[in-house]
Amino acid sequence: MPEPESPREDALGHGGRRGFLKTSALALAGVGAVVTVPWPVAEAARAGRPKRGRLLARNDVILFQGDSITDAGRSRAEAATANARGALGSGYAWLAGAALLVDRPGEGFQVYNRGISGNKVFQLADRWGVDCLDLKPKLLSILIGVNDFWHTLDGKYHGTVEIYERDYRTLLERTRQALPQIRLVICEPFVLRCGAVNEHWFPSFDQYRAAAKRVAKAYADAFVPFQAMFEEAVRLAPPEEWAKDGVHPTGAGASLMAHFWLEAVGELAG
Amino acid sequence: MPEPESPREDALGHGGRRGFLKTSALALAGVGAVVTVPWPVAEAARAGRPKRGRLLARNDVILFQGDSITDAGRSRAEAATANARGALGSGYAWLAGAALLVDRPGEGFQVYNRGISGNKVFQLADRWGVDCLDLKPKLLSILIGVNDFWHTLDGKYHGTVEIYERDYRTLLERTRQALPQIRLVICEPFVLRCGAVNEHWFPSFDQYRAAAKRVAKAYADAFVPFQAMFEEAVRLAPPEEWAKDGVHPTGAGASLMAHFWLEAVGELAG
Repeated sequence: MPEPESPREDALGHGGRRGFLKTSALALAGVGAVVTVPWPVAEAARAGRPKRGRLLARNDVILFQGDSITDAGRSRAEAATANARGALGSGYAWLAGAALLVDRPGEGFQVYNRGISGNKVFQLADRWGVDCLDLKPKLLSILIGVNDFWHTLDGKYHGTVEIYERDYRTLLERTRQALPQIRLVICEPFVLRCGAVNEHWFPSFDQYRAAAKRVAKAYADAFVPFQAMFEEAVRLAPPEEWAKDGVHPTGAGASLMAHFWLEAVGELAG
Repeated sequence: MPEPESPREDALGHGGRRGFLKTSALALAGVGAVVTVPWPVAEAARAGRPKRGRLLARNDVILFQGDSITDAGRSRAEAATANARGALGSGYAWLAGAALLVDRPGEGFQVYNRGISGNKVFQLADRWGVDCLDLKPKLLSILIGVNDFWHTLDGKYHGTVEIYERDYRTLLERTRQALPQIRLVICEPFVLRCGAVNEHWFPSFDQYRAAAKRVAKAYADAFVPFQAMFEEAVRLAPPEEWAKDGVHPTGAGASLMAHFWLEAVGELAG
């Protein structure tokens, strides 16, 4: 059932917005933070999560999955090559992956991007063997959901938020069964209120966000609150600065996403 | 006297490259790192540096200073307004400032950018009263040096590395005397080997980098090793990906700089 929450209330509900954004890293770092721990820490600990809140270890395979926001023009021809600039596209996956690889050279990270433009969660499932399980990721990051709603607006797709959540949970159950050691990062679907995003999106789209958060609480090691982040960002600059059409981030939007993604996985935590 | 070091050796000389990049934050965080502390920690402690390696505190005024790389097309008309998107330009200062303001809303940070395209260190000095001291920054970040060398190549400027270092030290002495509580971030001048950057730049330009590092060791609370960062980045993608003309960063280059700047000041340290 969708939660009747706004992104800001949502974020503030966990001991303050910053506390919320940092919860995973702080809790595991043993820093004296007075925040509730929203993730299944015990489960994550069983999965071999490293110390100090970091979700990555040497030689990890890191996979970004999602739709066009993740895809960002990546080269299909190079898709099988880890850390290839073209294969990572030009969006947040590239910027986050590049920062990680530059900051921690010699760690042997292998970063892949298999986002595909237009994808909904059931379409991830259709290609999950070849585009996820076969790669045996140690860290899997997923950003999916905007099309699951958007494509219903023109009447060509008839999915619902219940189907989205059910399919998402099924996909993650399957993933955890196939790769029990995997660490999962769930990114919050987001929109900016400009471009293609008009009043027809609300409150329906908020229900997809809430569903993604429930899925994250049940399955993920970290959650990246992109909607809360962009709600704050539009206090600083107009929505078009971050995503001209309301859906696809600009360079500045992608850079901000990369920052928050790296923080969420604890990789900029010193 | 210039140090005969390469960026990589240089970085590795401080307990490993990552150790070097993290030294300031780690040392102050009390994390059990076995790195030499290259900064004047005692002096910084006297200057009231906050706990846990962070260089910022509530309501701090943060000032970015430098040349075109910092300027990045900022609006002069809005220059007096803190946190104004136009006034911050479109480069690393904007991306780092935006990440900081979005990540820590309600902290009352006031971010300014007063970089001016073409500036050399003596030109910072010429406008230092109005463009630095009058703003009373708590954190001052400077990236200067590429023009101090570049402009000698066409014979129109006759500065030397000794003049650069002397002027830089004089500027920082003046700054510390006027604002004893200030925290200083010195950014390493850098170039990528493409575009306008050819064999005539070396080894002379390396001497300017070494001078900036000596100045940082003497005066700064943190040093951002941008050359070392880009040396690593070009192992991942061609130099043009990071700075088409070898000097001015692309969006991806600026995003990477913002990441490393935020790490250097300890603001992405959880």
